Amino acid sequence: MNEFPIERAKQLKPKPDPKTLVFGHNFTDYMFLMNYDAGQGWHDGRIVPYGPLQLDPSTMVFHYAQEVFEGMKAYRRPDGGVQLFRPMDNVRRLNDSCERLCIPALPEDVALDAIKALVKVEEDWVPSEPGTSLYIRPFIIATDASLGVHASHSYLFCVICCPVGAYYKEGINPVRIYVENEDVRAVRGGTGYTKCGGNYAASIRAGERAEGQGYAQVLWLDGVERKYIEEVGSMNVMFKVDGKVITPKLTGSVLPGITRRSCLELMRHWGMDVEERLITAQELFDAAKAGKLEEAWGTGTAAVVSPVGEMGWNDEHAVINGGAIGALTQKLYDTLTGIQWGTLEDPYGWTVRV
Amino acid sequence: MNEFPIERAKQLKPKPDPKTLVFGHNFTDYMFLMNYDAGQGWHDGRIVPYGPLQLDPSTMVFHYAQEVFEGMKAYRRPDGGVQLFRPMDNVRRLNDSCERLCIPALPEDVALDAIKALVKVEEDWVPSEPGTSLYIRPFIIATDASLGVHASHSYLFCVICCPVGAYYKEGINPVRIYVENEDVRAVRGGTGYTKCGGNYAASIRAGERAEGQGYAQVLWLDGVERKYIEEVGSMNVMFKVDGKVITPKLTGSVLPGITRRSCLELMRHWGMDVEERLITAQELFDAAKAGKLEEAWGTGTAAVVSPVGEMGWNDEHAVINGGAIGALTQKLYDTLTGIQWGTLEDPYGWTVRV
Ligand SMILES: Cc1ncc(COP(=O)(O)O)c(C=O)c1O
Ligand SMILES: Cc1ncc(COP(=O)(O)O)c(C=O)c1O
Repeated sequence: MNEFPIERAKQLKPKPDPKTLVFGHNFTDYMFLMNYDAGQGWHDGRIVPYGPLQLDPSTMVFHYAQEVFEGMKAYRRPDGGVQLFRPMDNVRRLNDSCERLCIPALPEDVALDAIKALVKVEEDWVPSEPGTSLYIRPFIIATDASLGVHASHSYLFCVICCPVGAYYKEGINPVRIYVENEDVRAVRGGTGYTKCGGNYAASIRAGERAEGQGYAQVLWLDGVERKYIEEVGSMNVMFKVDGKVITPKLTGSVLPGITRRSCLELMRHWGMDVEERLITAQELFDAAKAGKLEEAWGTGTAAVVSPVGEMGWNDEHAVINGGAIGALTQKLYDTLTGIQWGTLEDPYGWTVRV
Repeated sequence: MNEFPIERAKQLKPKPDPKTLVFGHNFTDYMFLMNYDAGQGWHDGRIVPYGPLQLDPSTMVFHYAQEVFEGMKAYRRPDGGVQLFRPMDNVRRLNDSCERLCIPALPEDVALDAIKALVKVEEDWVPSEPGTSLYIRPFIIATDASLGVHASHSYLFCVICCPVGAYYKEGINPVRIYVENEDVRAVRGGTGYTKCGGNYAASIRAGERAEGQGYAQVLWLDGVERKYIEEVGSMNVMFKVDGKVITPKLTGSVLPGITRRSCLELMRHWGMDVEERLITAQELFDAAKAGKLEEAWGTGTAAVVSPVGEMGWNDEHAVINGGAIGALTQKLYDTLTGIQWGTLEDPYGWTVRV
């Protein structure tokens, strides 16, 4: 286990009320920092008091968005312990993002130990109310103070944490989603399979438009043919059609979600037939008309599983399972959250104690 | 004319030697800042000493790359005056970028006056050696300290400047460029027509790969069919084939360059036939084989006009005009630089005195 020096904060913050937490607003007392410099590699991993970064206005990240991030959670177990869920998958995906964005890879063990060490220091910040957790945001930014368009020679790896409230405060309510015909989030050959900032910047406008029309999320189509379903908002998406589960395959423009992978593994373990393939929006609306679109749900770290109750596309509307959560969606939710919070056994070795 | 308060620097920096300037490294004494806050709009435009920005690690720009920028220059005229080249075109393009990225538009007159006021304060920084200029980088970053994926409610507009040396120190040398088959920079429906950071982040890997193989720039193909030429590196691209000039049309994934527009207007003014249309890479290599690819050049603020001497694509190679700059390329370069530096008359009203 890699060890990191800790610079102690003079004063600790009061913990916010876990009942009124807004996602991504209340950060903990400490953060992890590590620098990269050409010739030196990643160096000086350290835990320091949470505080602002001082950056020259010419810093590359402000101009050319050479930046990648991850999102994961620490969960409070019934026995009081704290655990992570498949954290090495996040570290590996972060390095996959780095490769595409020309950012030097992190040593996997150092990155994992950094996350563990920070959560250990912030253990008291992991809330214990049902459904709450500590959200962990590792990210890397390019820090050269220079305007040339090329890979930066210096980077900052930073990990910050914030306690988050229960995603479903009033029970799991299925959401309405809208198929986006105009804006494209990602394209094969681009950066869709990575968690780089640019993907999210490109997705904001459609998200706001959908929200303005009363939809919770955008259902993204592929950038080439504009007919294949890719993701829903910032989640992967799955459908149960005529008894069979289908989900978009990883074509390069879809993020390989860790919740997606876990759902697929669970369902296959349960003996279900699950298909990863190209799925057109038309196929789904046809299935809905024929009464065969039985369930639909998004998967992601934030919501775990988010049932879809209705889909809109131009003038078409499809209500799914009468707008209620389906049995399979519920079973996936219960199983995954059970393993994540430690109320169910973890036969797959997915959880890592801190 | 909008007026802005100026906070004076305690000490001014020594001016660097204009002969050894590296692009984008030496910033001037001052910068322009203006904030946006929801409910308040853009406010508090001001000129302050150049210095670091202090930002919370959760600031949106680090995570979701909600950021846009512009690039333009101030030129020293033979009479000692300083002028800008079509600056309102940059302001309008910045606002087009804002619209796509869900950033509130800048009032055009405020943005233009901000740039003029900053250049006025930094007038002594505009170098006068042949080919040198003051590069101006206006940019906007999302500043909400929050991790939710949506449009930020606060932004910072910042303008910084750096003197830049002559692009062609040893005469105009044509460059070798390489057709990129794998990585995609932008796609119709995406953000290609904007100057948002994500486009540049997506382009870095291919640029480094091309450089590693001895090429100066990447020739980008469209993201949908992967056969149409889009841009070269961070420039627009033009070809003279069998006496006629062709350039990729603005399909949504190509940046509407101001140098591109100026070249097209010049050539049309000269009575030349210029076509904006889809151009396949195959068509260009076929033309080269038939001896009809007479000239090729990139256009952009940095180089003005950059002749292409050779194109590579898989195992094919096309040498253009014997690797030398063509007559039309030279004429465009001479005319544009003449107008920009004020050694030629400006019959088009493109220049704006500061
Ligand atoms: C675009 C996008 N798709 C899918 C996901 C789901 O990935 P994961 O299950 O690893 O959280 C995320 C992140 O949460 C995402 O940002
Ligand atoms: C991607 C890209 N294409 C083309 C250009 C050329 O635009 P302009 O002539 O306005 O400088 C630029 C900017 O220089 C650019 O970044």
